[in-house]
Amino acid sequence: MRPRLSLDQYVNGILSGDHLLLSRAITLVESRRADDQRLAQDVLKAILPKTGHSVRIGITGVPGVGKSTFIEAFGTYLTTLGHRLAILTVDPTSQRSGGSLLGDKTRMETLSMNPNAYVRPSPAGNSLGGVTHHTRETMLLCEAAGFDVLLVETVGVGQSETVVYDMVDFFLLLMLAGAGDELQGMKRGIMELADTLVITKADGTNQTAANRARVEYQNALHLFPPTGTGWFPPVLTCSALTNTGITDVWSSIQTHQQLTSQNGYRNRRRQNQQLAWFRSLLRQQLEQRFYAQPYLRSQLEVLEEQVQKGDLLPVTAVQTLLSLAPDSR
Amino acid sequence: MRPRLSLDQYVNGILSGDHLLLSRAITLVESRRADDQRLAQDVLKAILPKTGHSVRIGITGVPGVGKSTFIEAFGTYLTTLGHRLAILTVDPTSQRSGGSLLGDKTRMETLSMNPNAYVRPSPAGNSLGGVTHHTRETMLLCEAAGFDVLLVETVGVGQSETVVYDMVDFFLLLMLAGAGDELQGMKRGIMELADTLVITKADGTNQTAANRARVEYQNALHLFPPTGTGWFPPVLTCSALTNTGITDVWSSIQTHQQLTSQNGYRNRRRQNQQLAWFRSLLRQQLEQRFYAQPYLRSQLEVLEEQVQKGDLLPVTAVQTLLSLAPDSR
Repeated sequence: MRPRLSLDQYVNGILSGDHLLLSRAITLVESRRADDQRLAQDVLKAILPKTGHSVRIGITGVPGVGKSTFIEAFGTYLTTLGHRLAILTVDPTSQRSGGSLLGDKTRMETLSMNPNAYVRPSPAGNSLGGVTHHTRETMLLCEAAGFDVLLVETVGVGQSETVVYDMVDFFLLLMLAGAGDELQGMKRGIMELADTLVITKADGTNQTAANRARVEYQNALHLFPPTGTGWFPPVLTCSALTNTGITDVWSSIQTHQQLTSQNGYRNRRRQNQQLAWFRSLLRQQLEQRFYAQPYLRSQLEVLEEQVQKGDLLPVTAVQTLLSLAPDSR
Repeated sequence: MRPRLSLDQYVNGILSGDHLLLSRAITLVESRRADDQRLAQDVLKAILPKTGHSVRIGITGVPGVGKSTFIEAFGTYLTTLGHRLAILTVDPTSQRSGGSLLGDKTRMETLSMNPNAYVRPSPAGNSLGGVTHHTRETMLLCEAAGFDVLLVETVGVGQSETVVYDMVDFFLLLMLAGAGDELQGMKRGIMELADTLVITKADGTNQTAANRARVEYQNALHLFPPTGTGWFPPVLTCSALTNTGITDVWSSIQTHQQLTSQNGYRNRRRQNQQLAWFRSLLRQQLEQRFYAQPYLRSQLEVLEEQVQKGDLLPVTAVQTLLSLAPDSR
């Protein structure tokens, strides 16, 4: 077991951009031990003034869309521009043992070796709520460590996209040409969250299909109601193989950042995200305290089953549960 | 003041299909008085076995789409088929004084006079959560009163569409041709909830535009990932003025009902809705009990402001709040 680090060691390590110390701080934040949690919060409090300056980008797409390959190409390009890039994952499947949809950091071999990039996989063994909370805190740590572009990656099959959407400034959706079978797994509603839509694998014999898909999606997006930000989500094509279109994606993000900084939208969005984070955490804590009462568990199952069948009114079930809780009035 | 009715009077009145008694029962359900709430629950418990048999339809569209006119035509048609129809509204704006977007029941003059239709506006002076809860209970009362088609109407400008989506079997989206300015108010993401999309006002000089819009929306919907129910949302056109296309909407609903009854989707969806209702009610009650502690209010405001600015960690704010609560551990 490694020796326990002090608050100062963590804070100084992070602020000096030490990747090893950053990794240990993230592990601390993800720990369930009560003393770790207390220390983690002190670390976060100390680095808080050094946070918030990065471009926070969310990225999603179904398995097979070529997300890792895109991130490798995109991330490498950003580092050549002098940016420092942290890549975090929110993986709803990582809770299950035996591997996750997003795999682990070894997927991004080039970026993992790049001194200006930092790849951190999703915390395992947590609820989506827990993953979300830890990812937000990890984002703060990365910003304090000097990363100026954060890429929060998730897989396009569950609720995790909206969760990621709620923690970033810009949401990038990767899609494949030929919107047939490949899209089966994708959750409805995601397309409308996108600030930019990118058709991947626009190379070789796939080029024509990609261009056609671009036009189709662009037409479809025109039918959507406007975002209220003055931004109209473009559809781009790119190929990580031939390294084309990657710079356009970054231009698109920069234009969006400029627009939303000027019109105040970015700031409002972040403030709302902060407030929503607080409220969901409070709700979560209240629920946890409630459900932590062990004799409620068995009752809860019975009641939920009756409610599901329509044999019991939800309001009656709630009253029954609340009357069982010792600290209820 | 009217004399208080007994449990038996309410129950017998509802089950015999007495509109007046039904209205009074709904008012009882919406009442905030504790003794009314107790009686309301006894009424609901008593009628519960007589509920669940109706086709529950949600309907939305931005102001100006012709929702009331459509409902008049559609509802009248249903009553000529022998159906009994109840129309409820979930109006997020009804909380504000001085009138609401959806107006009141006088809008639907023909249906209001029809003995086989029942129009009930949204309860006023409530939160959206409260409106939702009461609407679900009102749906049960209407089913017990013998209505076999429920139409839950809302306006397409806020969160209320997803709220309505979560209480119905089928979600109908009304849209205008010429998806320009008229759609400004519509929330993104709603289009993907629709089980059927109807272009209204397809008459006169607007006919061509309506047909073009139908094709465009149908193409756009094809790009969406499938719903997982085996149902592919059609786009229809209709005119309440010339009374065309109304029957197609009902056919579409019937086909959907048949499909989802057979493949078990409707039943699963209802069970999930029941469970979600229960859980949101429980969460709501836990939050209410928490916030009811008056000395927390002022603290909350201060903390939320700091959180919004990014000066305070949400987790710290939550801990501070929880430590102030007397029944915390």
